[in-house]
Amino acid sequence: MPDFAPLPDPPYWAVIFTAQRTEGDFGYEAMGDRMFEMAAKQPGYIGVESARTDAGLGITVSYWADEAALLNWKVVSEHMLAQKLGRERWYSYYTLRIAKIERHYDGPDSR
Amino acid sequence: MPDFAPLPDPPYWAVIFTAQRTEGDFGYEAMGDRMFEMAAKQPGYIGVESARTDAGLGITVSYWADEAALLNWKVVSEHMLAQKLGRERWYSYYTLRIAKIERHYDGPDSR
Repeated sequence: MPDFAPLPDPPYWAVIFTAQRTEGDFGYEAMGDRMFEMAAKQPGYIGVESARTDAGLGITVSYWADEAALLNWKVVSEHMLAQKLGRERWYSYYTLRIAKIERHYDGPDSR
Repeated sequence: MPDFAPLPDPPYWAVIFTAQRTEGDFGYEAMGDRMFEMAAKQPGYIGVESARTDAGLGITVSYWADEAALLNWKVVSEHMLAQKLGRERWYSYYTLRIAKIERHYDGPDSR
């Protein structure tokens, strides 16, 4: 997974997923890798950015060409299993926000 | 700074700031703390979430009640200085996306 997601012409969509991990792995890392792989193959996928603190708070933002693309990813069966395991095992709390990107910038100079 | 930002009724706005840090501090930590403090006092501020990888890739998402609130924060003078130093010293690359949050969820159970 590259560090930065591309910057296509707006508007496009983002899913901002913020989550506090429980202690222990319980299959999390392997599933996480698999989900990054699978998401990248979905129609309308733009990219993903992810970071986590030492205390286990993670922010993952995935970017999608349109709302249909992110809704289609939501209901992919293996992803639905991952969501279930997330609720049951991996996260003590999470928030998920669906957002429309209106504009963007980059720097220090455009690349 | 609390880990999770509040979830007011949508729509509200987000600024998704993803940035790769350069090596060395150069006043970054102190300015970062100051910016979190100042942002929290701005009208229309909702909250902020932030995480960074060991490799120095950080994602900071700040949430705002409306677009005017985030534009007002952008031009606060001390924040403009921080932006300038970010471009000159602290970040080898960054992206900043302005997004309108359309809906959100939380879990595993609402709290």
